[in-house]
Amino acid sequence: MGEPLKIAIAGLGTVGGGVIKALMAQTAGIKARAGRGLVVVGMSARDPSKARDFKLVNFTADPLALVKGDADVVVELIGGEDGIARKLIESALDHGKHVVTANKALLATHGKALAERAEKHNLQLKFEAAVAGGIPIVQTLREGLIAYDVQAVKGILNGTCNYILTEMEASGAPFADVLKDAQGLGYAEADPTLDIGGGDTAHKLALLSSLAFGVAPDLSSMTVEGIEHITPADIHFASEFGFRIKLLGVARRTSSGIDQKVHPAMVRIRSPLANVDGAANGVLVDAGQAGPFFFSGRGAGEAPTASAVIADLVEIARGTYTPVFGRPASSLTALKPASVDAAPSPWYLRFEVLDLPGVLAEIAGHLSQSGVSIESMIQRGRHHGAPVAIVMITHETAQSAVERALKAISASDKVRSRPCMIPMEAA
Amino acid sequence: MGEPLKIAIAGLGTVGGGVIKALMAQTAGIKARAGRGLVVVGMSARDPSKARDFKLVNFTADPLALVKGDADVVVELIGGEDGIARKLIESALDHGKHVVTANKALLATHGKALAERAEKHNLQLKFEAAVAGGIPIVQTLREGLIAYDVQAVKGILNGTCNYILTEMEASGAPFADVLKDAQGLGYAEADPTLDIGGGDTAHKLALLSSLAFGVAPDLSSMTVEGIEHITPADIHFASEFGFRIKLLGVARRTSSGIDQKVHPAMVRIRSPLANVDGAANGVLVDAGQAGPFFFSGRGAGEAPTASAVIADLVEIARGTYTPVFGRPASSLTALKPASVDAAPSPWYLRFEVLDLPGVLAEIAGHLSQSGVSIESMIQRGRHHGAPVAIVMITHETAQSAVERALKAISASDKVRSRPCMIPMEAA
Repeated sequence: MGEPLKIAIAGLGTVGGGVIKALMAQTAGIKARAGRGLVVVGMSARDPSKARDFKLVNFTADPLALVKGDADVVVELIGGEDGIARKLIESALDHGKHVVTANKALLATHGKALAERAEKHNLQLKFEAAVAGGIPIVQTLREGLIAYDVQAVKGILNGTCNYILTEMEASGAPFADVLKDAQGLGYAEADPTLDIGGGDTAHKLALLSSLAFGVAPDLSSMTVEGIEHITPADIHFASEFGFRIKLLGVARRTSSGIDQKVHPAMVRIRSPLANVDGAANGVLVDAGQAGPFFFSGRGAGEAPTASAVIADLVEIARGTYTPVFGRPASSLTALKPASVDAAPSPWYLRFEVLDLPGVLAEIAGHLSQSGVSIESMIQRGRHHGAPVAIVMITHETAQSAVERALKAISASDKVRSRPCMIPMEAA
Repeated sequence: MGEPLKIAIAGLGTVGGGVIKALMAQTAGIKARAGRGLVVVGMSARDPSKARDFKLVNFTADPLALVKGDADVVVELIGGEDGIARKLIESALDHGKHVVTANKALLATHGKALAERAEKHNLQLKFEAAVAGGIPIVQTLREGLIAYDVQAVKGILNGTCNYILTEMEASGAPFADVLKDAQGLGYAEADPTLDIGGGDTAHKLALLSSLAFGVAPDLSSMTVEGIEHITPADIHFASEFGFRIKLLGVARRTSSGIDQKVHPAMVRIRSPLANVDGAANGVLVDAGQAGPFFFSGRGAGEAPTASAVIADLVEIARGTYTPVFGRPASSLTALKPASVDAAPSPWYLRFEVLDLPGVLAEIAGHLSQSGVSIESMIQRGRHHGAPVAIVMITHETAQSAVERALKAISASDKVRSRPCMIPMEAA
């Protein structure tokens, strides 16, 4: 056995603490797998006096001081797409230290440059914990499903959103109420914007896209929509049609380029993604000729995320060398975005309308003029003069056609509130 | 970039052909990931004149001749737990060549000795294709879910059995008829014994068990039961209780040792394993504190299996070194089998009885004497004097108690045919 791998950890929150505790609890097992011990030689956090259920070792309040120690690896668990996390990773690489990080925001924004920096120094920059927590989806895309061209990756990548949608379905309560409960239970942050707005899913999707398609992570062309506008009525109607609503990150090859979208989508009730419940994550990979593969499990929390960090540390301890995104960073190509209509689908449409003569004719007319044809329809809540919901499923239609029709329909004085459009994903 | 990795392939059936074709079709992509080219320098099969959709290169009818060439890696796709496949792998390792194999029978039987042989020479012996086809479950257990002690692995590992059970449910047809159809469609072999009897699942389970628990693969203590005795009635009753019947390989830690079983099991309709349909495979890993993880996809066939072989070849090309079963082979411990009652569960019981006075009292009496208590019951098909089915779900009960009761009940002259007992797996 060689010398122990020396590890410095920046950020001692839930995940950092989990890593430290697991390394202590599983010393022998991890050593047997790694071929050498893993030992923590430095720690950094903002507040040394905070109560923690592990002992501080060589503590420093300055994370950048960790790169001057004798650590072989710096584990960055501070977060944030710029600022100190970025400085720390760059400095660690420049000081010849491998890096393990859970920082999706940073990698989604600066992934190619950081990977080039690591590869220039023959260092590892590993990020299994950045996507889908304990599910080893990064390794799977980087090393497993590589013989054929991956065609699509579709994931439930944010546990907070999935928890909220699952609870909305179970309770029938509106989004705002369920969000508040989720905040009380610790399933949602005090400022939930990054989760519920889809931004966190977007970061993760950019990383999966890079691994799957050999492109540099690229958020610039991604359309991102969150779950704030989903109503209990939408969830109810979805179930009447045999679907569930999930916030999906979808990246796929199309004839015009790579289509990257984060949006609420309808998935068939018996499909694997539809059965990912609560705070769990799930990822469906269409591995081309090899077929579809599905992966699910806990996407956040202490032990699942620590599990991913430790898997990366063990790879480094073994001396395994793999390019950061599966291919040399210099060969990652610029993402060519697909046209907006590259992936037509059936759509779920909901209109709140005044129940006045001619309203259905008006809606149907606009849809027809835009070339949107209807496969099925439900109308509910007829009280003359009061708003009613009209819900439709379209045949497979390009997005821009639906948007054109909805723009015209929104202009009608018989239509209340913004019409809702949700694509149905074959999954 | 270094010299290309030189590959010799023994066995040019579906999988071997798939590997060769994928290496030719994906040359640039695989080279980018591997950091060097992968080139086939030798091939072996029984019949050189067979029509194939790829060109033979340095063909030899004698697989053992491949180890004398200049290949860096020998890919063994001949199969069989002894004989030529074993000789080839041993000889390849002794000649300093890495080995990639899909041979579960061989590794389940001689895994530890072969791993020691490989590790003694610092060679790789990789077998992703041996379990669950394209699903990267070997890598996941070897390198991914390693921070906490895995508690259990439960898998649908045989596509033939899962196809037959799925078709029996869809059509209501009996086992023998569906098997015959499956043979006609190529989903079952002419001699289907190894599949339907559970032997193939047993081989794969022994490998997953080794990876999960750090034991030498061990078939000796495994109980193995196939799907031959499952009737359409069982499948129908299962669905009335909210379950599906799946052939599972189950390996779990218990307080008395490792419990390894292959058997038809009831799984709840909304559980991930219940939704693995047709010829697909699925694996549920209880990764201890990190929680449960689920993996599914195509478990056999040309492209999924070739995908697994190529992932192994790319790892070897990169120079990655990992112990064969995740830990040094010399440290794999002998499996201590669990006691038969180590994993109590609820049971589904079916009796074919003559509808005579006192028959239910007699069955209930025997169950009660053995300490088996009933949670729910269905009785169907009352035609006085003709056989009827009595179906029960028990409360959680040790296996030996159920067996004791069924032995007594079988002795009754009112009971027709062998009673059926199927455990219900929390999954």
